[in-house]
Amino acid sequence: MNSGSLFVISAPSGAGKTTLLKMVLPTLPNLAFSVSYTTRARRPGEIDGRDYNFVSRDEFLRLRDKGGFLEWAEVHGNLYGTGRAQVEQEMARGLDILLDIDVQGARQIREAGVTNTWLLFIAPPDMAELERRLTSRGTDLAEIIALRLANARQEMASIGLYDFVVLNDQLERAADTIRAIIIAERSRTRRNALGRPINLPETP
Amino acid sequence: MNSGSLFVISAPSGAGKTTLLKMVLPTLPNLAFSVSYTTRARRPGEIDGRDYNFVSRDEFLRLRDKGGFLEWAEVHGNLYGTGRAQVEQEMARGLDILLDIDVQGARQIREAGVTNTWLLFIAPPDMAELERRLTSRGTDLAEIIALRLANARQEMASIGLYDFVVLNDQLERAADTIRAIIIAERSRTRRNALGRPINLPETP
Repeated sequence: MNSGSLFVISAPSGAGKTTLLKMVLPTLPNLAFSVSYTTRARRPGEIDGRDYNFVSRDEFLRLRDKGGFLEWAEVHGNLYGTGRAQVEQEMARGLDILLDIDVQGARQIREAGVTNTWLLFIAPPDMAELERRLTSRGTDLAEIIALRLANARQEMASIGLYDFVVLNDQLERAADTIRAIIIAERSRTRRNALGRPINLPETP
Repeated sequence: MNSGSLFVISAPSGAGKTTLLKMVLPTLPNLAFSVSYTTRARRPGEIDGRDYNFVSRDEFLRLRDKGGFLEWAEVHGNLYGTGRAQVEQEMARGLDILLDIDVQGARQIREAGVTNTWLLFIAPPDMAELERRLTSRGTDLAEIIALRLANARQEMASIGLYDFVVLNDQLERAADTIRAIIIAERSRTRRNALGRPINLPETP
């Protein structure tokens, strides 16, 4: 059986990533969402193992020091990380994995050199539209919006790290493009240790 | 504007290539079919410039000696070739080009080193199914079918040359996969001479 691929998805806040992932995930077989580890407290409604793997700071650091994370970061005093064993086991079972992380995490994944890894960046049509989307939520203070826009500019400058840029000017089209990237990758000829493409159909 | 890509499609006789290309071509914008040059006589119903560019043997050889073909071959005494200028001009205009050629032609294209070129191999589910399809046409002699099967085996051995293998076990799914490969390629970040990914959306 072919091993799966890892699709790392990043986007500036407001680019529509969460909506897009919810559209793509149920429409493709053998595609799983990677559940991160975190040390932050569980919020009402969150389920351990579905939303996050909730662990203590001690457990997290022990796992980290054993090289147990493909990437990790500290955000507002809480630790977040992607478990290496979990991702590698699911890929070995032939599952493709979707991983929702920021630019710094994507950079760590790239540097970790995981095979069959593809980095996707979801981009808003332009910064003016991003500002409009962030403002129209109506939930955030002007200072928060300004900070998100500054972060977005910085993240957009890292697009060169990524293999694909999906422009989210129309939701359906952007979702189709993410699906296409995953489907295309599944048809790619890869070579096994014997130099034989592993997508070669069997001949009797 | 981004330059287009060249998608080279090969398949053993009976793998369903012609049907698939007819399904894919009308469903994607900015996708054009490359019209080959040939020295063979025009058949009733064929239109110069649509089915082939019909040229004399002298014209063909003159063009060939100027390096005017990305690939060419002699088949049953007739010359066939893919015009370099035509393909490069259409790609420069931003069109993606579909090119339907055999394994030998695909190898020449790969060796010609055209940038943004992707090689797709359309494979039958297995050789038994291929034989069934070739036989069920009911138009060919047993010797012709045996020859086509022998050729198919040889072509299947060249799959390693290709970037993608599209298994044609179900027509609709195979057509979707070809579309996905083209759509995914259009979202790929490429680098221009300045090292800037050319899919980067504009910021105001």
